[in-house]
Amino acid sequence: MPGEARIIIAGAGFGGLAATRILARAHQKVTLVDQANYHLFQPLLYQVATAGLAATEIAIPVRSIFRRYPWVEARMDTVVGVELDAKRLLLSGGYLEFDFLILALGAVTNYFDHPEWEAYALSLKSLEDAIEIRSRILSALEKAEYEKDAAKRAALLTIVIVGGGATGVEMAGAVAELTRHALRGEFRHIDPARTRIVLLEAGPRILPTLPPDLSSKAQEFLQQLGVEVRLRSPVTALGEGWIEIGAQRIAAGTILWTAGVKANPLGKAFGLPVEPNGRVLVNPDLSVPGYPYLFVIGDLAAVRDASGKLIPQVAPAAIQMGEHAARTILAELEEKNTLRKPFRYIDKGTLATVGRSMAVAKIGWIQCAGWIAWILWLFVHLIKLIGFHNKALVLFEWTWSYLTFRKGARVILRYHRPSRADSAGKAS
Amino acid sequence: MPGEARIIIAGAGFGGLAATRILARAHQKVTLVDQANYHLFQPLLYQVATAGLAATEIAIPVRSIFRRYPWVEARMDTVVGVELDAKRLLLSGGYLEFDFLILALGAVTNYFDHPEWEAYALSLKSLEDAIEIRSRILSALEKAEYEKDAAKRAALLTIVIVGGGATGVEMAGAVAELTRHALRGEFRHIDPARTRIVLLEAGPRILPTLPPDLSSKAQEFLQQLGVEVRLRSPVTALGEGWIEIGAQRIAAGTILWTAGVKANPLGKAFGLPVEPNGRVLVNPDLSVPGYPYLFVIGDLAAVRDASGKLIPQVAPAAIQMGEHAARTILAELEEKNTLRKPFRYIDKGTLATVGRSMAVAKIGWIQCAGWIAWILWLFVHLIKLIGFHNKALVLFEWTWSYLTFRKGARVILRYHRPSRADSAGKAS
Repeated sequence: MPGEARIIIAGAGFGGLAATRILARAHQKVTLVDQANYHLFQPLLYQVATAGLAATEIAIPVRSIFRRYPWVEARMDTVVGVELDAKRLLLSGGYLEFDFLILALGAVTNYFDHPEWEAYALSLKSLEDAIEIRSRILSALEKAEYEKDAAKRAALLTIVIVGGGATGVEMAGAVAELTRHALRGEFRHIDPARTRIVLLEAGPRILPTLPPDLSSKAQEFLQQLGVEVRLRSPVTALGEGWIEIGAQRIAAGTILWTAGVKANPLGKAFGLPVEPNGRVLVNPDLSVPGYPYLFVIGDLAAVRDASGKLIPQVAPAAIQMGEHAARTILAELEEKNTLRKPFRYIDKGTLATVGRSMAVAKIGWIQCAGWIAWILWLFVHLIKLIGFHNKALVLFEWTWSYLTFRKGARVILRYHRPSRADSAGKAS
Repeated sequence: MPGEARIIIAGAGFGGLAATRILARAHQKVTLVDQANYHLFQPLLYQVATAGLAATEIAIPVRSIFRRYPWVEARMDTVVGVELDAKRLLLSGGYLEFDFLILALGAVTNYFDHPEWEAYALSLKSLEDAIEIRSRILSALEKAEYEKDAAKRAALLTIVIVGGGATGVEMAGAVAELTRHALRGEFRHIDPARTRIVLLEAGPRILPTLPPDLSSKAQEFLQQLGVEVRLRSPVTALGEGWIEIGAQRIAAGTILWTAGVKANPLGKAFGLPVEPNGRVLVNPDLSVPGYPYLFVIGDLAAVRDASGKLIPQVAPAAIQMGEHAARTILAELEEKNTLRKPFRYIDKGTLATVGRSMAVAKIGWIQCAGWIAWILWLFVHLIKLIGFHNKALVLFEWTWSYLTFRKGARVILRYHRPSRADSAGKAS
């Protein structure tokens, strides 16, 4: 028989899902709220943006994940507030009363002090973002094919990626593979392989969380694929079709922003205690001071390790926090008055892939680069992806892509529904 | 060495593609213009709308289809006009001069005398349409799950499909399978299997182009799946969330319009001679009277068979016309002054599937219904779909779906890009 406590988890990202899974298996009544009807496997989002995978291949309906646990409810709704003392989670479609709440609202793209840049530099956080980036990259090539002005054509064939973290590096590698290999032989007036791909990193090296020799190795891989890697190159200005690094201006048809994330501003908006970076201050057990029934996990939580360093905003940390919060709730429900255990983060390592047979990995004290790291990357991502259906599709896409050098999802979708007047030229 | 004539084909639907293929193989210089960068396999569009297939699985990049024919150019652009005497095709991004032009601009949804209905009754002609229908159907169920008002809940759980042709029938069957099987066990407060599905047909039977006994059989199949089939029920009025058949009003969260198509209005707009239905009048060789270098094919052309009956607006007719027009051009290029052959339509039959093991088929004088027709349907659609990649994916999706009763692409995409303020509740 399921437990009687009302547990609510807000956010179906890695953290929220991990917490729900623990509680579901323990027969606890859980409501998992998310504004989307699916869990998004974000580590592969850049592959949707570069036409390697279909959007639906990395999005798994939340209902379907928990269909065998009748005591778990998936609710698609938007979180708009929390009444901390009344223990109510406010949704745009009503409210939910809780005995325990786990807030796992994640992060949003950080344009630092330039929110106005969002209009020109596309972020990569949602499926809609990825579909839009895919359309923009492919459309720029389509336009370049018939652009007669050499300067305009060169601009259309320039893609600037801001940010040398894992997303920026993986994105740059995938764009290189798309333009260098997948489109070979398909254009008549341009050579997509000559697309200029610039990766801008403000700091002294890419992948700064990895050891310096792996950063160098990844940079070497990118350069082999023809990516221009520019270190110590902070963006100073950008607008429609151009970006500036100090005095230097680059005309670019596509500008992608992967320079950072920040905690979902809802933490602060809900009146929770936050650090200057917007992450919510939590006790060692991940609960909010003064509210033992409210946990904050994942990218939204400011958790420090023994040395006082903030735990990074990565999926494994969110998963571990989700499991910790869920186990704390379970312990409390099973035997009252237990002493809560502090959360300890176990760094399982970092993997980043650049392209075919090129990846870097640091797992414990093992470091590797190249083919082995690449196989490891494939393997880890495939097993972490939820569901047989999605695993099988992604494995097929990767195998096909590996054998043929092609990419299967090269479709330009019109984001805003076209009016009928636009339908010229489209046959039945 | 490729030929020197400039041949332009406007529209990459079935007709345009068939014409291009013939000319490509004959080493003719062809430019294929379409507003999309892909050929859409429309017969399976309803499966995207009902979450059985991903959008990219039925959309094949035009460039990729003809990549091995360097003398064929794919141009993504919108046709805006034709200068018949100057032999120029006007595009939104310039113009193209031609020696031969094949117009294959297809059809658009026909709301008959009620263009205002378009806002409330969704059509199914483009990938964007299909993605929107999928989101609407899934969203209605999500809303119904938490709707406390019984009447509102019942309305959300009502889907009305207008039009008992092949698209309406296949759509109704697929919605039934989605709600009756694929979502089993996933909701906590509603039973999606009790979704009311109403198929409205104005005439006396569904699938009117098939023999009456196959119409009855298809209706029986639909009823087995719990679809309410209403014959002789022309829509008299509709609006946001409701539809009327005479005095009877049905409150419905989702209204889909598959009641008919009409020729792309561009035929008339370009000043071509048209029938009252908008289809362009053509000579027996498919050229426009007075313009031997201009061919009109597919849903846009008004072609009559020997008995004077208009040839139906279906894919096989478009393909045959495309091939005929292409061969006529080839003959003319190879030996001048040939007598042009008249087009003859060969009716290859009709297939429509209702659901698992339920289909109807008429091929020549062979008629069948049930399991054999269903296998035939699967086989024909799979071989007609272009490309190994897409065939393999669709085969996998169908097999998986057959074995598990599930549907793999149940993702609600937000059509208009959400603002950042909407991102509450979406974890990283």
